Amino acid sequence: MSKKENILIIGAGLCGSLLALRLAQRGYNITLVEKRPDLRKIEQDAGRSINLALSDRGLRGLRLAGVEEAAKKLCIPMQGRMIHHENGKTFLTRYSGRSHEHINSVSRPGLNMLLLDACEKMPNVKLLFNMGCEEVDLKAASASFTDHTTGDKVQLSGDLLFGTDGAGSAVRKSMFLSRDFLFSFSQNWLTHGYKEITIPAAEGGGFRTDKDALHIWPRGEDMLIALPNLDGSFTVTLFLPFSDSDYCFDNLTTPAMVMKYFKKEYPDAVQLMPNLVEEFFENPTGPLGTIKCSPWSCYGKTLLMGDAAHAIVPFYGQGMNASFEDVVVFDEVLEQYEGNWPKIFSEYENVRKKDTDAIADLAVDNFHEMKEHTASDLFQEKRRLELQFETEFPSEYNSKYSLVTFNENIPYSEAMKRGRAQDKAILNLLQDGKLPDSLSLHEKLEKVKKETSEILHDDAVVKNL
Amino acid sequence: MSKKENILIIGAGLCGSLLALRLAQRGYNITLVEKRPDLRKIEQDAGRSINLALSDRGLRGLRLAGVEEAAKKLCIPMQGRMIHHENGKTFLTRYSGRSHEHINSVSRPGLNMLLLDACEKMPNVKLLFNMGCEEVDLKAASASFTDHTTGDKVQLSGDLLFGTDGAGSAVRKSMFLSRDFLFSFSQNWLTHGYKEITIPAAEGGGFRTDKDALHIWPRGEDMLIALPNLDGSFTVTLFLPFSDSDYCFDNLTTPAMVMKYFKKEYPDAVQLMPNLVEEFFENPTGPLGTIKCSPWSCYGKTLLMGDAAHAIVPFYGQGMNASFEDVVVFDEVLEQYEGNWPKIFSEYENVRKKDTDAIADLAVDNFHEMKEHTASDLFQEKRRLELQFETEFPSEYNSKYSLVTFNENIPYSEAMKRGRAQDKAILNLLQDGKLPDSLSLHEKLEKVKKETSEILHDDAVVKNL
Repeated sequence: MSKKENILIIGAGLCGSLLALRLAQRGYNITLVEKRPDLRKIEQDAGRSINLALSDRGLRGLRLAGVEEAAKKLCIPMQGRMIHHENGKTFLTRYSGRSHEHINSVSRPGLNMLLLDACEKMPNVKLLFNMGCEEVDLKAASASFTDHTTGDKVQLSGDLLFGTDGAGSAVRKSMFLSRDFLFSFSQNWLTHGYKEITIPAAEGGGFRTDKDALHIWPRGEDMLIALPNLDGSFTVTLFLPFSDSDYCFDNLTTPAMVMKYFKKEYPDAVQLMPNLVEEFFENPTGPLGTIKCSPWSCYGKTLLMGDAAHAIVPFYGQGMNASFEDVVVFDEVLEQYEGNWPKIFSEYENVRKKDTDAIADLAVDNFHEMKEHTASDLFQEKRRLELQFETEFPSEYNSKYSLVTFNENIPYSEAMKRGRAQDKAILNLLQDGKLPDSLSLHEKLEKVKKETSEILHDDAVVKNL
Repeated sequence: MSKKENILIIGAGLCGSLLALRLAQRGYNITLVEKRPDLRKIEQDAGRSINLALSDRGLRGLRLAGVEEAAKKLCIPMQGRMIHHENGKTFLTRYSGRSHEHINSVSRPGLNMLLLDACEKMPNVKLLFNMGCEEVDLKAASASFTDHTTGDKVQLSGDLLFGTDGAGSAVRKSMFLSRDFLFSFSQNWLTHGYKEITIPAAEGGGFRTDKDALHIWPRGEDMLIALPNLDGSFTVTLFLPFSDSDYCFDNLTTPAMVMKYFKKEYPDAVQLMPNLVEEFFENPTGPLGTIKCSPWSCYGKTLLMGDAAHAIVPFYGQGMNASFEDVVVFDEVLEQYEGNWPKIFSEYENVRKKDTDAIADLAVDNFHEMKEHTASDLFQEKRRLELQFETEFPSEYNSKYSLVTFNENIPYSEAMKRGRAQDKAILNLLQDGKLPDSLSLHEKLEKVKKETSEILHDDAVVKNL
């Protein structure tokens, strides 16, 4: 067997460290470079997406690299959405009617450390921290860095260069600025920003509210969510317009205004957050954006993966999962065309881009669904019916949420197409009174299936003209 | 009446010169700055979109500024699409079943000169050419320029600054690079480029082919179109993939290959283009992109308009029309809120952006329609039926094309929504055999209307959840 190539991976976050691990397992020589300090050796920043939702597609990526079981030890299963009404009442909507299907709350730094530890055990992975990428030579697969510990300029190169340097990717920026090829690019910001607040663990270490759910306080224009952490705390995230609203980041400028807003909108949450005001003013306010681009690669030398290629908003809990799935899809394409890098890069984008575009769009849809629709009667009626279908006919029905979250063998683009058609079918049948109580559950399911196929047929006639 | 503001307009193309004229008519003091030389004093570049389609929305803008009749003298009416088959046969598909509805071929430089002449007659317009914008101070409504005739740096400022500097806008670039606000932005390139070729006038000055039509040679992946010019010539545009195709710009590298390609695909056109090979290699190959962004304004001081805010691909013949309509919509908003610039700018974007987004998407759809669908049986059957509807029931039916092109009182976004629903209705009814010949034309129309409302209803239930 010929000697395997040297691969320079820029960005040792979740995607970069899983990719490095997997490519090292395949025998490549990896240099994994990260601009931040080694997160195993420093205290974590507060207020920056401390925990994330890990589900089937992400677990598949971890399984491929042999670290699924270790990662599961960091997980807290969440069975559904716990909706908190303005009147303080709560109700749980399960994510699936099939009892084994759930998502997991996992610590971002915890999982990242696990992956870095696994990389470090590989003799063919070299880890470099505190190295900020300044500029990339896309054709030469090399880049210049500033070593933040010494201030020195450092040049690194490989036979190939992978940019897994996240939503603000320096590698992607070099592609954007290149004049040698047409680079399609979009960055789209929501009108809302986010801020993280903590619900600390109860005295003695327990959880102050139900730990088996993702908590949501939907309020139309704004929303609070909370995910549990292993130490008994919850990380709460407020999603709020930046401006032009009765309550927005621009006008919540004093402790009194913050307290007034929270007491009015989230009275049951306020009492769980003793440091609300301090954290509100100490923690940063983050923007929420979607980034798409194409091509993901150039010159058969440089490739973008993960958030660097497709950053999405967090409302489907799929950002990390999509990045881990990137590694799975890339590994399959690599297996097929190993040795022919230009073909691998173009085929990978050809197979993958429609799916990352789909999850980006679904995530924006879910932003509206979570803050508005979860409180609407028609939406709740739909969810009740779908859960009944999934419970009684588990092999016959998957909701859009289940297709996206629990069906790793169905690509995101297919999940979107089928899921949207199903949603449209159920919502219209309900709205038009065509699913009366006189029908049995199975008769309702048959009607939904029939209406769904008609919708898909009608769309296909236009699309396949 | 208080003194009117000084307005700096960067870019004296079609949009900037119409905007300058209209704002001058309203009494503002205008400085209109253009990076290129005064096009009234130089020979025109070959190969850069010499003629354009002017239709109702554009004419409305010219009417507002009192130059419609003068502009009409530059127009050649085009009644429909003349489709050229591979076997040399041609057939005309009219743009509308209403005989007064047509589009016009107009010279871009001719129309631009007319507008500059009109600007120059206004005492409160100052025209500056050869001034390349280098950097914009968005808050101060000022910009620095290089005077290309002297090499000097020049600083200009106004109370307000309008960027009408086209798809490659320097004003928009300053907004993109600003770190003070979130700027959503997209640039999306088609896989195809374009190249212009000439069909010269016949000896004695006549036209070598039918001048009353927009000619199309649809060939699936590639396409040729031709628009007539006043001097008897036609400007032909080839749309072809850049790469990865049997015939593409990357592999049409020799005169023999160019001739082989044209003779195979466009035999009837080749004989009309005596300078085909020379022009193919002399004229530039242009990219085709869509640009969207938001916000269009910042600090209540600076606003983007025309292609600078929303560049679109040329396949609906609406680029110039959309830019002229910008001026109409802006004028209405200005009338309503005159004096309150931050309100004018935000309200203008609020009213207008959904419509420029819509025409951008419709134009990309039409790229596929023109090169592929115009040759498909189902599509042609649909067009025949729509033309019958428009001819027999002119007040009851407007095709999507008519809604977009001939209905200036229906916003693009509404035209898109209704037009797409109608297309879907007709295509599905035809495909499913639900419009048999046994039905009268009016019965068919009623069926199409009913199906269209059902589609709109079903979509609304999902959208208004």
